[in-house]
Amino acid sequence: MKRIYLMTPGPSPVPPLVREALGREMIHHRTEEFKEILTRVAKGLQYVFCTENPVLILASSGTGAMEASVSNFLSPNEKVMVIDGGKFGERWKEIAQSYQLEVLEYKVEWGEAPDPDYVKDQLDKNPDIKAVFTTLCETSTGTVYDIERIAQLTKARDTITVVDAISGLGQDKLLTDQWNVDVVVSGSQKGLMLPPGVSFISVSQKAEKFMQRSTLAKYYFDLKKALKSYQKNDTPYTSAVSLIVGLDVSLRLIQEEGREARWQRFSKLAHATQEAVRAMGLSLFSRKPSNSVTAIVSPPGIKSSELVKKLRREYGLSIAGGQAEYKDKIFRIAHMGWINEQDMIVCFSLLEKVMKELGYTSNVGASTQRLGEVLYA
Amino acid sequence: MKRIYLMTPGPSPVPPLVREALGREMIHHRTEEFKEILTRVAKGLQYVFCTENPVLILASSGTGAMEASVSNFLSPNEKVMVIDGGKFGERWKEIAQSYQLEVLEYKVEWGEAPDPDYVKDQLDKNPDIKAVFTTLCETSTGTVYDIERIAQLTKARDTITVVDAISGLGQDKLLTDQWNVDVVVSGSQKGLMLPPGVSFISVSQKAEKFMQRSTLAKYYFDLKKALKSYQKNDTPYTSAVSLIVGLDVSLRLIQEEGREARWQRFSKLAHATQEAVRAMGLSLFSRKPSNSVTAIVSPPGIKSSELVKKLRREYGLSIAGGQAEYKDKIFRIAHMGWINEQDMIVCFSLLEKVMKELGYTSNVGASTQRLGEVLYA
Repeated sequence: MKRIYLMTPGPSPVPPLVREALGREMIHHRTEEFKEILTRVAKGLQYVFCTENPVLILASSGTGAMEASVSNFLSPNEKVMVIDGGKFGERWKEIAQSYQLEVLEYKVEWGEAPDPDYVKDQLDKNPDIKAVFTTLCETSTGTVYDIERIAQLTKARDTITVVDAISGLGQDKLLTDQWNVDVVVSGSQKGLMLPPGVSFISVSQKAEKFMQRSTLAKYYFDLKKALKSYQKNDTPYTSAVSLIVGLDVSLRLIQEEGREARWQRFSKLAHATQEAVRAMGLSLFSRKPSNSVTAIVSPPGIKSSELVKKLRREYGLSIAGGQAEYKDKIFRIAHMGWINEQDMIVCFSLLEKVMKELGYTSNVGASTQRLGEVLYA
Repeated sequence: MKRIYLMTPGPSPVPPLVREALGREMIHHRTEEFKEILTRVAKGLQYVFCTENPVLILASSGTGAMEASVSNFLSPNEKVMVIDGGKFGERWKEIAQSYQLEVLEYKVEWGEAPDPDYVKDQLDKNPDIKAVFTTLCETSTGTVYDIERIAQLTKARDTITVVDAISGLGQDKLLTDQWNVDVVVSGSQKGLMLPPGVSFISVSQKAEKFMQRSTLAKYYFDLKKALKSYQKNDTPYTSAVSLIVGLDVSLRLIQEEGREARWQRFSKLAHATQEAVRAMGLSLFSRKPSNSVTAIVSPPGIKSSELVKKLRREYGLSIAGGQAEYKDKIFRIAHMGWINEQDMIVCFSLLEKVMKELGYTSNVGASTQRLGEVLYA
């Protein structure tokens, strides 16, 4: 009789219509039928990514697409700037270093957003920076970055802006073309409401030029090949057929709701979550909370890892603890993809229950009351 | 009312029990529940791979695992031998070259199997060969290679044998440990009866030593990290949850039937297919036909690409044409994974029908009669 409540920042719940599609009979990936699906999916991805440029599909988790957007646009020893304000900014740094790039790291305190003026300053001082790697929503801290201003800085330079939008896409507004973002990376298992296993990269015309001159080693993640296949409604290697058949359905659901409507809905969910947190007497971890995931400081005496474990084991509710040094200090609740208002009510109701069992004295019912006030206003 | 008959060498059909598992509710990949699945899956993969060594799981198509088994065991400018007797041997060469390795190519004519004596000779002359890259079943030609003898040659040398068993695993016998194969690569969408999207690599202790000293660039496909995660029943990046939940079911089905029983069954299916081909007055393309896929020479006047198209469009039967220069000259019928005797009957019955429509005069019914004789003997 156990229920599953999946409120982690990936994987996020998969709607029944999509799950039905995942279990359909297998078809071959080089048929007219599958090409039609890929054609529809290509358009749907452009809609979600807010771009007219190609959005390439890889069979990998999001990290594979992050690696592809390092190895395909740069050459050995080139200088790149990495904005590192959490676990996923750090990942950019690790990938860039593993390719022996010269990494100029902009270390941002966890929970803070980067200062675009500092980025500008560094770009002015280092005209040889070829790429700025940054994050839309830093999942580890629940922080949204000002991509609009950062991307604007590289427009007139010989530099591209590469954004990890793996957890943010669909909830946190990202106007790829309008904001001049060259490369946007995302994954299937968050805002796109699919299981993990496929990832995406949008490539601007400027980024395509960088691609042509890049000499770093790559094969499976070679985007030149992916782009060539894309133009024929194909993928270079065997497509992750079931996931793409599911994607066709989830993109339809997203387009039916509308991207603007979704941004507004998640903004409201995030705001309500923040209010519910305050109503419980707790505080937010992030200074610039994202619309995709809310990070909450665990109160004294409660290890967030314990809280997470108890919620999952006893009530089937999966939220996330903190990462790295914040493992026991914060917990994170996602509001992305298929998550709705009622999920948030259940989540906070269980959170209050378990926090009480762990000895936290708060006004039980205060958070769900506040959620109702904000959401049903 | 259209039926799908999927007889391509990947993707192969997915059994209903597995499809049901693919569509289950999403669960988080770092939970006890998922760790239990990964633990079972690890054992099941060892059974199928005939190894006591770890079989690592990657979220990628098979080519990703091929790249991983180049980038993880070698260092810049090292010499490797590549056995290239078709499209997938060629892929080994391309990957090795994209990593600037020194490639000694053993070019084998399409449809032929490599001569282990020639491999021995080359290893004797080139003691600095660090790895031999070869193939269990060369899918493009339907040819099985003598992996037992090839792998034996590297046993006493400072050389590893790396086998692409993507299409062969499960049908063509491969005793990984007993035959001294260091690295075996496979994919999900063939013998393992899953959709495409996950791949596998088994790593011997000798290969692990190579891994420790390898300096080629890698990140997503870093097997040292994958091995560390494996020891904790985890994967370094987000697991392709739905596919692994499906894998848990397909591995159970395989273990219930038994690997030896399966080898025998596919050997019989392959033999019956070969006999049916002859009964139609056609000839086999391969001199050493595999148990996974049969390549057939298209008779004069019939372009195999046309035959394939007509079968798919008019009857829903997917078989494969030839690749590269054999595009119009051969066609290929897979007998792998979930394919059974009755599928072969339907396949040949439709093949006879369409070949007749294309003007090929053969004894209609001869192939299905012969199939029955061999299969039901």
